[in-house]
Amino acid sequence: MNNEQIRTAARKHLDGLTKPVGSLGKLEDFAVKMAEIQGKVVPESGKMGAFVIAADHGINEAGVSMYPKEVTKQMVANFTQNGAGINVLARHCGFDVFIVDAGIASDVDLSQVIGCKAGYGTRNFHEIEAMTADQLEICLANGKQLAENAVTEGYKILALGDMGISNTTTAAAMAIAGGLPAESIIDKGTGISSEMLDHKRRVILESIERHAPFSDAKDIMRKVGGFELATMAGFILGLKGKGCACMIDGFPVTAGAYMAWLMDNEVSAYLFAGHKSKVKGHAVMLQAMGLEAIVELDMRLGEGTGAVIGGFLVNLGIKIASEMASFNDAGVSQSTGKEENY
Amino acid sequence: MNNEQIRTAARKHLDGLTKPVGSLGKLEDFAVKMAEIQGKVVPESGKMGAFVIAADHGINEAGVSMYPKEVTKQMVANFTQNGAGINVLARHCGFDVFIVDAGIASDVDLSQVIGCKAGYGTRNFHEIEAMTADQLEICLANGKQLAENAVTEGYKILALGDMGISNTTTAAAMAIAGGLPAESIIDKGTGISSEMLDHKRRVILESIERHAPFSDAKDIMRKVGGFELATMAGFILGLKGKGCACMIDGFPVTAGAYMAWLMDNEVSAYLFAGHKSKVKGHAVMLQAMGLEAIVELDMRLGEGTGAVIGGFLVNLGIKIASEMASFNDAGVSQSTGKEENY
Repeated sequence: MNNEQIRTAARKHLDGLTKPVGSLGKLEDFAVKMAEIQGKVVPESGKMGAFVIAADHGINEAGVSMYPKEVTKQMVANFTQNGAGINVLARHCGFDVFIVDAGIASDVDLSQVIGCKAGYGTRNFHEIEAMTADQLEICLANGKQLAENAVTEGYKILALGDMGISNTTTAAAMAIAGGLPAESIIDKGTGISSEMLDHKRRVILESIERHAPFSDAKDIMRKVGGFELATMAGFILGLKGKGCACMIDGFPVTAGAYMAWLMDNEVSAYLFAGHKSKVKGHAVMLQAMGLEAIVELDMRLGEGTGAVIGGFLVNLGIKIASEMASFNDAGVSQSTGKEENY
Repeated sequence: MNNEQIRTAARKHLDGLTKPVGSLGKLEDFAVKMAEIQGKVVPESGKMGAFVIAADHGINEAGVSMYPKEVTKQMVANFTQNGAGINVLARHCGFDVFIVDAGIASDVDLSQVIGCKAGYGTRNFHEIEAMTADQLEICLANGKQLAENAVTEGYKILALGDMGISNTTTAAAMAIAGGLPAESIIDKGTGISSEMLDHKRRVILESIERHAPFSDAKDIMRKVGGFELATMAGFILGLKGKGCACMIDGFPVTAGAYMAWLMDNEVSAYLFAGHKSKVKGHAVMLQAMGLEAIVELDMRLGEGTGAVIGGFLVNLGIKIASEMASFNDAGVSQSTGKEENY
């Protein structure tokens, strides 16, 4: 069956289950999208895994964050001790957690972290290109390899999370370099126009000016990208045609996904936007990729916290399609019309 | 500690966990509300239960639904065989399911259903009062007893679901009788102005005219209520001061909750609105009670399906408060300011 046929058959299957037609709303949409991704009329649940990819950012030297760079490494240690937000949420949403070092500025304990280091932090892109062409290729290849390994291990839904002090600055630069309007991307904060935010905006715009023009997504990532975000782009590209969905998270992860989308628009077919972040530019990138956020809980932590919550709900859609009784099986009378409610 | 002190201490606890202040958004709000409900700075998880309360409605005789009345009983049988939407969603969201007969028009298998029958369906309120004063008191008392038993058994989050063919008509009449504007309550459907919906609107408005004025919530329930919805009102009132949260669901359950709220405005302190239904009047009632829906997934099935999804997310808030590491414990550096993001 082609995609169109699977979609039609999946809807028909859902319409035969014991509920008014379409009454489970987006859960039914998730089931249909998963049917298309898996190429199966009734999609199947499987293992779910969250990849939290961490790296450091040279742009931190430009004073764009109130957190010291060391927090990246400290939080990675916290991840390995199951103490962070993503650990708690992944555990209860049914996701295994994998921590990846894509370029932390120091060495980490590789017994608990997957080593994919492309360097000891990017360079400060306010002054120079963030990474070399070789480093970018390493990130893309590493991401692809991580994705392929996860598929081989039977994962059906993968979630991406980020950790990297100053990576919202990197993500904003990537989005703007990718053609999105600066005023819709750079966050003014919650009404309080702090000096820090003005400074951050200036650093981003000056960096864009320094590196323009940008020829394509690879050029953007090389000049103003981040190791973890480029690894995510490779990860997403690596899932194409693999029957596996990918949940994206907030602003930084979505910037990585946006790069993958610029390289191949078809990635949207297997991406889900876990949540709508409070960070301003997030929704703009989702819209560009034709994605709609699943939940809006005013979250802005990153780490994949929104991705696993959204992934839990996508999986509920699969469970609806695969576990509910049909009208025939249950001996329940159907409506005499296409009614909205019971 | 009083509520104000618990709220302040709960926020302080959350602010010490390894994340930027407030970055888990509404999950943190849920944790704070649960702290107040339980009277504990760090709220505790416990058992979660969904009560799906079913009854028949005499107003079905007025031709307001395209489903035959028999579907109520057939769906209850489906619930007991674990084939319905609520069974699937409750199982994966961590809720035990209890099915209650508050007034189905025929006898049901009481080995799998809790018997709380106030009658064999209400009377047709287009012609006569829906129930007697005694029947209403039975419903309220039954609901209170169900709630108290669940608290005794250790449930910390309870969800309410409904099953009753034609109960959206009953719910609309209750909401309008309760003072909400008819034009904001009666659903026009999805753009298609069908004859059925025009008829439903006429039946509701004529019924309101027949029974007006309404002296209070009990008067409303007696005249245009439903057995399952009155039982829910009693259930909610019975949870006051018991340290247990109650998740409400879509339009019918919310009409039951609205009656409880008219009788005692303080119930809002332990109510959560699981989801925003696609049915038009739902948001109007939530707003009246000062509640904000947790998710918006275009659902309109009822049965408690939105309540258990919302309840799962409230429980995630508890898990965040009770399982995340603090900055001190994890040795992570804090921000030098109150920063939005990493």
